Amino acid sequence: MRLTFLGTGSAGGVPLWGCDCTVCTRARIDTSVRRLPNCAVLEAGDVRLLIDAGVMDIAERFPAGTLSSILITHFHADHVQGLFHLRWGTGSLDAFAPHDADGCADLYKYPGPLNFTHLSKFETFCVGDVRITPVPLVHSKPTLGYCIEYKDAKLAYLTDTRELPPATVSFLKEWRPHTICLDCTYPPGVEGKRNHFDLNEAIAIGADYPDSNMVLMHISHHLDEWLMTHPTIETEKFSIARDSEFIDCPESI
Amino acid sequence: MRLTFLGTGSAGGVPLWGCDCTVCTRARIDTSVRRLPNCAVLEAGDVRLLIDAGVMDIAERFPAGTLSSILITHFHADHVQGLFHLRWGTGSLDAFAPHDADGCADLYKYPGPLNFTHLSKFETFCVGDVRITPVPLVHSKPTLGYCIEYKDAKLAYLTDTRELPPATVSFLKEWRPHTICLDCTYPPGVEGKRNHFDLNEAIAIGADYPDSNMVLMHISHHLDEWLMTHPTIETEKFSIARDSEFIDCPESI
Repeated sequence: MRLTFLGTGSAGGVPLWGCDCTVCTRARIDTSVRRLPNCAVLEAGDVRLLIDAGVMDIAERFPAGTLSSILITHFHADHVQGLFHLRWGTGSLDAFAPHDADGCADLYKYPGPLNFTHLSKFETFCVGDVRITPVPLVHSKPTLGYCIEYKDAKLAYLTDTRELPPATVSFLKEWRPHTICLDCTYPPGVEGKRNHFDLNEAIAIGADYPDSNMVLMHISHHLDEWLMTHPTIETEKFSIARDSEFIDCPESI
Repeated sequence: MRLTFLGTGSAGGVPLWGCDCTVCTRARIDTSVRRLPNCAVLEAGDVRLLIDAGVMDIAERFPAGTLSSILITHFHADHVQGLFHLRWGTGSLDAFAPHDADGCADLYKYPGPLNFTHLSKFETFCVGDVRITPVPLVHSKPTLGYCIEYKDAKLAYLTDTRELPPATVSFLKEWRPHTICLDCTYPPGVEGKRNHFDLNEAIAIGADYPDSNMVLMHISHHLDEWLMTHPTIETEKFSIARDSEFIDCPESI
């Protein structure tokens, strides 16, 4: 089971439009360190799931018939903006999402080929042979994480969130994923009300899951700047996601 | 004064995702006949105006500091979707738009560098030496056309609309633009309630403005398909806009 990161950035990605910080300036020259907004694709057997649609060329990357379904974590624009264009097309594509009466802009009014299904937390469903359990997260809009299982492979995809609710923690501890992909938007010590984890919080969460590799994503230019002066933060257990990189979860253990 | 079309398509552009019609199939092979969603850039003297933002890589096409302002015709996603990403950036950019309490998604809530100004019809304003008069159109959301003037050059940009209100007609007849860029989404004879012009309507409107060149835009795959079997529709007066093409309006007459 393979997860490929298409976009590992926070809302504005890297480089941020108009930003002259070291990280954004570098990313304008070296495209390999750019971060698009949140998006990933999970492939297992015959199933190909898109997770969020923050990249804006979904229709070109995935011609009709090449995706099994879409999993939407929540309806902030940086997670669904790639669907605005695609939904004027034809055909049929299931899009699983949290209960959110508003959705985003007119996606519900003109869904086109998108068949939205609103999920209930912890109610497992299947796409082909892939089992998916939505788990609640805590954000400024209704948000679900996805625990995805194929044969013995288990991966949890958890963004955007400022905490893991107790029920989600209990589920994860019982479920014991091989990999947890976790929101880690900020460097350590950002003050004020936040809707995302910082690095210290993400590391503390990792300690609760000794069997899981932690892959940090939804990364802001602030965290990338901090990482430039702390290059040894990555370990066997903790890694920083990068656009176009992939993770393979073993299907037999 | 030069207008360059960045996107001449209707909401879903050409090719439509999943569509196997002749036009959409051709556009997947021959990228020169693709149509992105609505977007244009107007250049006059030192001024560079973006008109709508249907193309989704605005932040890459126009680095910070390269646009003078944005003119928004209305807040349907296919006209503003390129702003979702850019607005997480830094700096300041004026965005002129019709009065629309809803906007689109959370653009008003998190405008970032975009300074939205809501315009009143027929109240002329200036960006540098460019004079702009917003004129009312008739659509399913509050919508303005823009009559743009620099020295002796005059261009009217009129999309999306199903009719020209009498006050707009009076203004245009008095103003006598060199070029009218007009919504022409459909081929002749499309039945039912519509929010856009068809070709017969666009041609009829052209007859009312004998001094103006008519450039038809916001084109659907249906109209492109009709045009394949009616290749002689273009005349000295009527032309069909294409992505990346430009129009020069004479600045002295």
